[in-house]
Amino acid sequence: MALIVQKYGGTSVANPERIKNVARRVAKFQAQGHQVVVVVSAMSGETNRLIGLAKAMQEHPDPRELDVIVSTGEQVTIGLLAMGLQDLGLKAKSYTGAQVRILTDNAHTKARIVSIDEENIRKDLAEGAVVVVAGFQGVDEDGNITTLGRGGSDTTGVAIAAALRADECQIYTDVDGVYTTDPRVVSEARRLKTITFEEMLEMASLGSKVLQIRSVEFAGKYKVKLRVLSSFEEEGDGTLITFEENDKMEQAIISGIAFNRDEAKITVLGVPDKPGIAYQILGPVSEANIDVDMIIQNMGTDGSTDFSFTVHRNEYAKAMDILNSQVQPHIGARQVVGDNKTAKVSVVGVGMRSHVGIASKMFRTLAEEGINIQMISTSEIKISVVIDEKYLELAVRVLHKAFDLDHEDA
Amino acid sequence: MALIVQKYGGTSVANPERIKNVARRVAKFQAQGHQVVVVVSAMSGETNRLIGLAKAMQEHPDPRELDVIVSTGEQVTIGLLAMGLQDLGLKAKSYTGAQVRILTDNAHTKARIVSIDEENIRKDLAEGAVVVVAGFQGVDEDGNITTLGRGGSDTTGVAIAAALRADECQIYTDVDGVYTTDPRVVSEARRLKTITFEEMLEMASLGSKVLQIRSVEFAGKYKVKLRVLSSFEEEGDGTLITFEENDKMEQAIISGIAFNRDEAKITVLGVPDKPGIAYQILGPVSEANIDVDMIIQNMGTDGSTDFSFTVHRNEYAKAMDILNSQVQPHIGARQVVGDNKTAKVSVVGVGMRSHVGIASKMFRTLAEEGINIQMISTSEIKISVVIDEKYLELAVRVLHKAFDLDHEDA
Repeated sequence: MALIVQKYGGTSVANPERIKNVARRVAKFQAQGHQVVVVVSAMSGETNRLIGLAKAMQEHPDPRELDVIVSTGEQVTIGLLAMGLQDLGLKAKSYTGAQVRILTDNAHTKARIVSIDEENIRKDLAEGAVVVVAGFQGVDEDGNITTLGRGGSDTTGVAIAAALRADECQIYTDVDGVYTTDPRVVSEARRLKTITFEEMLEMASLGSKVLQIRSVEFAGKYKVKLRVLSSFEEEGDGTLITFEENDKMEQAIISGIAFNRDEAKITVLGVPDKPGIAYQILGPVSEANIDVDMIIQNMGTDGSTDFSFTVHRNEYAKAMDILNSQVQPHIGARQVVGDNKTAKVSVVGVGMRSHVGIASKMFRTLAEEGINIQMISTSEIKISVVIDEKYLELAVRVLHKAFDLDHEDA
Repeated sequence: MALIVQKYGGTSVANPERIKNVARRVAKFQAQGHQVVVVVSAMSGETNRLIGLAKAMQEHPDPRELDVIVSTGEQVTIGLLAMGLQDLGLKAKSYTGAQVRILTDNAHTKARIVSIDEENIRKDLAEGAVVVVAGFQGVDEDGNITTLGRGGSDTTGVAIAAALRADECQIYTDVDGVYTTDPRVVSEARRLKTITFEEMLEMASLGSKVLQIRSVEFAGKYKVKLRVLSSFEEEGDGTLITFEENDKMEQAIISGIAFNRDEAKITVLGVPDKPGIAYQILGPVSEANIDVDMIIQNMGTDGSTDFSFTVHRNEYAKAMDILNSQVQPHIGARQVVGDNKTAKVSVVGVGMRSHVGIASKMFRTLAEEGINIQMISTSEIKISVVIDEKYLELAVRVLHKAFDLDHEDA
């Protein structure tokens, strides 16, 4: 008998019929002798509907009141799922975040979990009930309703699994696991049986979008066994996210090829090479709330340097405007150039820590196809390059093949 | 400066535009120096939508979980109204029933209020904020969400007014007060400036539907000054419901003519006249959850009697079936006859306690129009008759005129 926390997202509970499917799946696990806690999101579309109502009242909705409104989405789902479970003859009981007492700080709309009172849940489980908990929400010390921000239901699932010391936290989603790359780009893409937390973090932040990055960090911190599964398929073990690297490193050097189409590259040319220049360039950009991804500085020979970075394509025009109007004249740079038709491709794998030659293999593979590398950035477990957008699919395909990801794990 | 509790129903908060109107009205009261607590219902249609979702999960939704779901309706409205008030530059804060701590018993979907913790509300009011409270909901001792049943938002408003010892509880609705009768039937119907609690109780239970009967009882018990007003008209003082009869009795004997179209009459003929017979007839009916309204027993001369009562028209067939199959053969009655084309008309007024001749005036007025009276039932402040449905409008019109209700209070 195991204690399992299952989390179902908005598309898995989009309507009463799908909620009934979730109930049947939960019932199957309970019939196998497991104790089950289920964390659910709002029915898909519901959160946006509620935010729309709020914006009809206030251009910038008050965060406290927005949380009061938005948290009702999950509250409806927990009641419906508890009913669905009861309709199958199971004992079931729902809890809002406040009722569990998922205590958070008071940062409305992006609160952080402080502690979880798991006593009542344990009591219900001991009595044979399935416990259904509203994801994404909590309550602060003063009893105000808080939300964890978009995707926070994953975090709720992991946090409850941590508090209960559950055997596994299963995240049900509309994909059946983590793939070596996007199957729409490379038909040979394979589902990974396991992936390490660190790889998952890189895959998520690089746009794999299977799990919220925060929930993965949380799982890593509390050593929660996390599994990604499809809520629409009956079979399949999904992908297990582990924090033991040992087995993994023997098997495969590279876990996957991640990519991001929305990258735009900006270079400030002829920057005087002196201390503080990076801040003078990026300070005004970040003050405008523009997120910067890769940053590279190339040392020049004439006492000046070129400074490059990437931003989301949607913020390219705004960033260029800031650089041209505020930064370039101020720091005495020669010119600002940019390209919003670029893409980022990354090779990810904890194995590369102990293997040399990954970078050179990646660069050679791209060179053989005539793909020019515009920027390079590396971490311990990934190598990212920026290339012309039009070569993106080709690059992903050839790298997937070159690193032998087309075949089942050895 | 007064402390005012205002309650707005579902049609008054049906969409963001109407919620903004409510915010403006509240702001006007605050600008006049009053402290305002606002109680709101769910946006109209929302409660039914949520019940529909629940019924899609379970034929008979679990009451605890139904309350979890349905209570979200008001929770959305409080957030939206608080935003609307803030958008006008006011301080405003929302409270769910659980956050106020409106403590109820644990009778889900029809809970009764046990106590209200008004401390936080008082603090907010002292700080100049408008407090927005979710109607219709509370929380039991174990932290389960409860609801007070349909129309319970009125009760919340009155209960909060009682707890705060507010100067007035204003119920905003889609009518601008209590009328001498339905203006759609009698165009001369007038809005009453005041009505007593007892009259109001009779008017409400007789189908006037302006206020929930429970909230009126509650207001009477705690001596809360209750005023019914229109949320769609800027001017007008509505109708004040009082518990001081003195002035009132000098002015008018009869306050209004109430009526109910949905009455069906059933008579059990030739019932042996012996003790316990009423229970033998009505026991099986009430066990089938059929509400009985008027009950009359006519003494016969041959040792047998006729027993008549009325039920809601929708339950007529079911009641007849029970009487024919279970009751009539069992008690040895001669026959069961019924008529579901009847209606009830009532003359209501505390004044009739001290005035004779009201009944005879009523009966004479109906006789002059050739309207046959099928049943009569009286209380201290009302006289009700059952008549053929087709004479209903005529009866209401002539009684309205006979009791001089067409003209302004003297």
